Amino acid sequence: MMSSSEMREKCGVFGVFNHPLAADLTYYGLHALQHRGQESAGIVASDGERFHFHKALGLVTHVFTRDILDRLRGTMAIGHVRYGSAGESGGQNSQPLVFKYRAGDLAVAHNGSLVNAAYERELLHQQGSIFQTATDTEVIAHLLARSAKQHFSEAAPEVLKKIQGSFALLMMTEKQLFVALDRHGLRPLSLGKLGDAIVVASETCALNAVDATYWRDVEPGEWLLIDEDGIQTGRFAEAEKKSLCSFELVYFARADSKIDGKSVLAVRKELGRTLARERAADADMVVAVPESSVPAALGYAEQLGIPYELGLIKNPYVGRTFIEPTQDLRELAVRLKLSAVREVIEGKRIVLVDDSIVRGTTSKRIVGLLREAGAKEVHVRISSPMVKDPCYYGIDMADKEELLANRWAEEEAMGASIGADSLAFLSERGMSDVLNIGLSEGSHHCLACFNGQYPTQLY
Amino acid sequence: MMSSSEMREKCGVFGVFNHPLAADLTYYGLHALQHRGQESAGIVASDGERFHFHKALGLVTHVFTRDILDRLRGTMAIGHVRYGSAGESGGQNSQPLVFKYRAGDLAVAHNGSLVNAAYERELLHQQGSIFQTATDTEVIAHLLARSAKQHFSEAAPEVLKKIQGSFALLMMTEKQLFVALDRHGLRPLSLGKLGDAIVVASETCALNAVDATYWRDVEPGEWLLIDEDGIQTGRFAEAEKKSLCSFELVYFARADSKIDGKSVLAVRKELGRTLARERAADADMVVAVPESSVPAALGYAEQLGIPYELGLIKNPYVGRTFIEPTQDLRELAVRLKLSAVREVIEGKRIVLVDDSIVRGTTSKRIVGLLREAGAKEVHVRISSPMVKDPCYYGIDMADKEELLANRWAEEEAMGASIGADSLAFLSERGMSDVLNIGLSEGSHHCLACFNGQYPTQLY
Amino acid sequence: MMSSSEMREKCGVFGVFNHPLAADLTYYGLHALQHRGQESAGIVASDGERFHFHKALGLVTHVFTRDILDRLRGTMAIGHVRYGSAGESGGQNSQPLVFKYRAGDLAVAHNGSLVNAAYERELLHQQGSIFQTATDTEVIAHLLARSAKQHFSEAAPEVLKKIQGSFALLMMTEKQLFVALDRHGLRPLSLGKLGDAIVVASETCALNAVDATYWRDVEPGEWLLIDEDGIQTGRFAEAEKKSLCSFELVYFARADSKIDGKSVLAVRKELGRTLARERAADADMVVAVPESSVPAALGYAEQLGIPYELGLIKNPYVGRTFIEPTQDLRELAVRLKLSAVREVIEGKRIVLVDDSIVRGTTSKRIVGLLREAGAKEVHVRISSPMVKDPCYYGIDMADKEELLANRWAEEEAMGASIGADSLAFLSERGMSDVLNIGLSEGSHHCLACFNGQYPTQLY
Amino acid sequence: MMSSSEMREKCGVFGVFNHPLAADLTYYGLHALQHRGQESAGIVASDGERFHFHKALGLVTHVFTRDILDRLRGTMAIGHVRYGSAGESGGQNSQPLVFKYRAGDLAVAHNGSLVNAAYERELLHQQGSIFQTATDTEVIAHLLARSAKQHFSEAAPEVLKKIQGSFALLMMTEKQLFVALDRHGLRPLSLGKLGDAIVVASETCALNAVDATYWRDVEPGEWLLIDEDGIQTGRFAEAEKKSLCSFELVYFARADSKIDGKSVLAVRKELGRTLARERAADADMVVAVPESSVPAALGYAEQLGIPYELGLIKNPYVGRTFIEPTQDLRELAVRLKLSAVREVIEGKRIVLVDDSIVRGTTSKRIVGLLREAGAKEVHVRISSPMVKDPCYYGIDMADKEELLANRWAEEEAMGASIGADSLAFLSERGMSDVLNIGLSEGSHHCLACFNGQYPTQLY
Repeated sequence: MMSSSEMREKCGVFGVFNHPLAADLTYYGLHALQHRGQESAGIVASDGERFHFHKALGLVTHVFTRDILDRLRGTMAIGHVRYGSAGESGGQNSQPLVFKYRAGDLAVAHNGSLVNAAYERELLHQQGSIFQTATDTEVIAHLLARSAKQHFSEAAPEVLKKIQGSFALLMMTEKQLFVALDRHGLRPLSLGKLGDAIVVASETCALNAVDATYWRDVEPGEWLLIDEDGIQTGRFAEAEKKSLCSFELVYFARADSKIDGKSVLAVRKELGRTLARERAADADMVVAVPESSVPAALGYAEQLGIPYELGLIKNPYVGRTFIEPTQDLRELAVRLKLSAVREVIEGKRIVLVDDSIVRGTTSKRIVGLLREAGAKEVHVRISSPMVKDPCYYGIDMADKEELLANRWAEEEAMGASIGADSLAFLSERGMSDVLNIGLSEGSHHCLACFNGQYPTQLY
Repeated sequence: MMSSSEMREKCGVFGVFNHPLAADLTYYGLHALQHRGQESAGIVASDGERFHFHKALGLVTHVFTRDILDRLRGTMAIGHVRYGSAGESGGQNSQPLVFKYRAGDLAVAHNGSLVNAAYERELLHQQGSIFQTATDTEVIAHLLARSAKQHFSEAAPEVLKKIQGSFALLMMTEKQLFVALDRHGLRPLSLGKLGDAIVVASETCALNAVDATYWRDVEPGEWLLIDEDGIQTGRFAEAEKKSLCSFELVYFARADSKIDGKSVLAVRKELGRTLARERAADADMVVAVPESSVPAALGYAEQLGIPYELGLIKNPYVGRTFIEPTQDLRELAVRLKLSAVREVIEGKRIVLVDDSIVRGTTSKRIVGLLREAGAKEVHVRISSPMVKDPCYYGIDMADKEELLANRWAEEEAMGASIGADSLAFLSERGMSDVLNIGLSEGSHHCLACFNGQYPTQLY
Repeated sequence: MMSSSEMREKCGVFGVFNHPLAADLTYYGLHALQHRGQESAGIVASDGERFHFHKALGLVTHVFTRDILDRLRGTMAIGHVRYGSAGESGGQNSQPLVFKYRAGDLAVAHNGSLVNAAYERELLHQQGSIFQTATDTEVIAHLLARSAKQHFSEAAPEVLKKIQGSFALLMMTEKQLFVALDRHGLRPLSLGKLGDAIVVASETCALNAVDATYWRDVEPGEWLLIDEDGIQTGRFAEAEKKSLCSFELVYFARADSKIDGKSVLAVRKELGRTLARERAADADMVVAVPESSVPAALGYAEQLGIPYELGLIKNPYVGRTFIEPTQDLRELAVRLKLSAVREVIEGKRIVLVDDSIVRGTTSKRIVGLLREAGAKEVHVRISSPMVKDPCYYGIDMADKEELLANRWAEEEAMGASIGADSLAFLSERGMSDVLNIGLSEGSHHCLACFNGQYPTQLY
Repeated sequence: MMSSSEMREKCGVFGVFNHPLAADLTYYGLHALQHRGQESAGIVASDGERFHFHKALGLVTHVFTRDILDRLRGTMAIGHVRYGSAGESGGQNSQPLVFKYRAGDLAVAHNGSLVNAAYERELLHQQGSIFQTATDTEVIAHLLARSAKQHFSEAAPEVLKKIQGSFALLMMTEKQLFVALDRHGLRPLSLGKLGDAIVVASETCALNAVDATYWRDVEPGEWLLIDEDGIQTGRFAEAEKKSLCSFELVYFARADSKIDGKSVLAVRKELGRTLARERAADADMVVAVPESSVPAALGYAEQLGIPYELGLIKNPYVGRTFIEPTQDLRELAVRLKLSAVREVIEGKRIVLVDDSIVRGTTSKRIVGLLREAGAKEVHVRISSPMVKDPCYYGIDMADKEELLANRWAEEEAMGASIGADSLAFLSERGMSDVLNIGLSEGSHHCLACFNGQYPTQLY
């Protein structure tokens, strides 16, 4: 699934405790997490007395300069990259959010989505709170400020009991770093060590980027308070069955990350292999939708012994500032981003492997590109099940009625609608078998968008 | 007093109700108020349903473009220009502040300083409020959100009873414009009409700029609520003795504004005349410190029949982005901004008229420039009394011990310290006589920085 | 004449030889010359081996930053500020121009206009030269590069013989600074000393700004070659009658400059006095069009014993990025830049003193402002004669038929056309008498735009 | 070879004749050629009467906005993307260059390097030409302007006879588009048709991007003059043996381009296969240095039946504005750009396929990354011969003595120096066999950097 316009993960978080170059490390960590959000970036550093921060719309490499990093003094820092939300202009919602409250300064960086945010926000409004952003994250800060507990170390765990949904959460005061993960473990969050420093990141690829050693994942329902007295841990909830978002493994996470102890790359390849076993296609070659579907395509090809070929090339320079063609040149839109290699494709029967289909718009265009390039047959294979239900935990799927799987009853009709000779999805069972390998008993992955079984109460 | 680094007025506010080009008018209105604050500018417009806003660091002409103005749709708008406050980087404190609270959207623009802001802020912190700015203005929003009154129209007047100090205040909801002035009338605030539209501005020069007709000043302790049902007015406090800041008349306001029914230009000229009567100097010519002191200098010259000459020329292009000379060229600093005309000055006995002296640093430099240009004598005459006490209502004076008047007991020693042959100030009585002309009984001007008599309780 | 859109001087130049902070000084020098051109600014420094330069559209304070200045290393530098020319976007024409030619690197900064530029350009085209700018200045560089003389020191004076018109010219090679002034001395150019450094500037106000001591003016037809061997001077033309542009004294130059040994301020005041003697008006007060006409207005008032009053206030923040009102608010245009003070004007008979009238558009608007503010009578007095002929030496007057003086036969009709009760100009004789004071025999000022007598051949 | 710092192709060119959206198409065409140059971008459009142009430092998507494109009116346009050259700051060298000469306006865009540029430049200097850039391209414009032929259509072909080296050249006057390729055909240049419009581009991927139909390649020594009278073609040189740069096929061109009638992707894969036949390695998997080496790696793997695995992941967000780690974090440099996947690599014997080695610095770092990730053996295989000689036709290789192949006599020592268990290069014969497939008799590719046989005279 190449199109960022169809499905959107909201954020990446990164934090450092006890390193003289905390802001620099956070810059590199966020850079490694850039795939998790390209709209805004921010870093808050603490020198033990006060905060120094900078955040703005844009990529990490555009938001920060050497001068700015140099001003972000201190041995602690947290950072955030974020995907856009509708209707905002200006970056008021950029994270980490920074507040002053009765106990001092507070910075909050959050990846996820609270299902009871609107409810809690309304309660807070009734008690006289004012909000400056439309974020769930600001709700967390308000709850903290209103906690009956006076000390941050006591108030922070209390607040976590009130919020429901998905959250990989970093909070920072002048001297403390607080880390927590929702009780279902819906979002990934890993800890690392770098000499005497503690590092925390949404994905292990960011730990690798700063040469930190992977220590362990934060557990569902767990919190950690890190300050000069050491690391204190606790639970704000009994560990429920772990339900990490399966889309992280299928699409969001970077291939070189390890999630839940498993290589993302290996999982994707295995999904491709399983898909091949379930839904083989008689074809001359396997082509991937670059870049996220390459591992699944390799697995699919390997399993069936069909060659994997580079039939589609992505223009690496398509970014946020790209000027989309106006009406008269509209038909160019897809080919400016992706190009089919005629010499590879022409006259061939193609298996096009993608990791997921949401609305099907992009798939239809890509099938069209392959047809134009002379493909004899195009068989689309998807290395995950049909997406039928919306996500309430931070993934902006299309509206339910726009989902391809809800517009057609049968795979065959779906396939026809995107112009493919055949279309087949990985089975839910097939996916579970791959994802559940190595999980502790009772744990599984959240498959709500595929099967409608939501791990949390909904509001 | 030419130096903005010695004394600083904090803000200018402007608002429009019921005009199809509300944001454009606000742009021009703020532009006319630019002298009241050059650090940041912002406009919030309401289309009746939602806000559209933009604010940033910089001059009005830099912050806004045609494109941005076009996006600020709606028939209501409020705007703000602001002087810098120490320690901020990034513009988080730029106004108007925008909030969401239980009743909807709220924008607040404020000129002034609350003497009980720290106290109220602490109370709010204890009740669990979180703050995103260091402004007094955010305190007002919190009080509003926590008011026992549910409706904005009831809550807003209530809040005004809790805040003390100086405030010319504009608040806007999706459909309502609220205007209020502190009970002492410390800051100016005038109403105008432009066809069917209502306009409100810190100074009448901004009404003139948009071709609005002056209607009347907002009265101390008065509020107005303007919406589609009309204009509702009320009082949150008995009218106390009016105590408009005398520095507005002496220095801050633009010469073409009318404050308290009096022409600022005429008042300044009369202060110069009175000064001449009190403290004549035997000299060949009168020279003004440009620009604000020109009227007083004209009055001084006229009264004594001494010629007024352009002995000092100001470089109009010195602005915020000017690169100050480094150490090796430090001595150039003053001459890059101001230049003495040797052909005028040489061999002459000069009366240098300035409107005020705070720390005396700039005065010393200007006297030096005149000496270098060959002045035979330099007699400094100040068209206001000695500044001896700090202002708690929005003017950033120097620290009390830095004030020239507190470092030397006598005028003579003060004059010597700035290199002048003589130095003389307008008497407090002389100033009062000029300022009080035409004031209603009981009213007067705040002279606290001159005589230490503060009109409000201090905290 | 406040409007820069009616008449435009093209440039200011500044140069430094032998100072460790050559680029810094040039920055401050250009800043003092900013009134001579606001469109672009540039500095070229030489470290003796190579050039370092920066130029861009914008004010001096916007074009340069501390970082940029620090990169402009070397002990020599020349700089340039420039007014806009039609049709350019992007700044290709910004000066100093920098070239590589057979002898090495060359930088050229030029104030003036060559009457034979088109002719020489065509000759050069026919010989195969290519041009990157539309400037006269590039013609000079081509002529130099094609000179039969191999050495810069010989070629440069030769080139000057071929060019006609007005030029105050700075050229720089890696090790040499070359200064020259056209044979008529149409543009001002002054030399100064600052310790061991030599400084050259379009106006003495820039020498003062960097604390250089005025040494002497460059003479018409003179050149100077300054390098480590000292200063060599010569003539490329017999000194003709000096004909410095009278508009420099009337309008362009900064009031604190000294041109031709005379204080600009004093000259302007004397023009006002002479105007008063020639064309007295029976009025209550004298009002100046700010800023350039203030000295003439003071002189006019002084001569007649009528009070000078601040009836018009200019908004100092109107600049290039100001958003002009769109159609619906068009009538605001003039009042956003200039404001009449009703309290001063109302019911009064006003003499409005301006330094010149070109098309009359602005004058008409200003008279209108005064009328709106309640003026009983408005008598316009101009401290220079009628402008009837175009300038070919660097001043962009309007087209000949657009000049107010060419649209009406009589002062009376002209006055009526701008809404004035009366209009009167200074006589040519009156102007000459003032300007010629102190000039050496045979010298005079160029009055071509007033009387059509051009000092040079025209093409 | 992932590192752009080791070897640099200079440019891409694109042109359109007779299309109402010429500038838009050029924008998309340049965007598809972005891999050929990331430092600056420029477009010149002609509306038949005059040019409209814009160029600046930065990526195509940063340099142009919708507003700017809209101003580039006209039905003809040429564009250019360019790699950086040392020592420039500011973008004066950005192309297309725009000149005025005797016949009117001229724009020039050039990909390549002239071996006699310095010689011709010196001749031109002696004849009095002045240069504003350090580019070879400006030499071409000077020669054109000095041609004995008066008409562009005659002069342009003449000039081509004087310049030697590599050039894919576009020139434009107000009404004509001129296209030419050097006599050796060292750089690629293809023609396409889009309805009634003619399109020309450095690579066919840019024709595809704008949906143009590939028409044919420009032939070595050929020129085309396209205007409203049609297309005129001619030769300025007998077709010599064609010698297209082999590095275009190995590394520079985008994989979906077709060069010389051959799919770049297919050629690279075949180079990998041939390499496998020549220099098989006993290993568990094949890993590519992303992105350019993926096809060769696939070919290598396929030939030997070893699995191709994604052992290295590239961070797609590393760009020009990336802040390189300071001294204390220097060891992070390579891992921020490239990441080895431990789960894939650990305990395995790896064949690392790269397309070329220049200095070997990057190869050494990548081998190190694989070792850290637990690789048991690392065998480096290069799908081109050793680079031993500098390129004079536009590729910035390292200095000759820095080339890895010149620092060690044997492959074994080279391999050891980069930490590999073995290192092997494709033979020159092996490369020629692949590249020469389908070439017309006598044609071949330029292999000068591999074997020192330069197709042109050197100066």
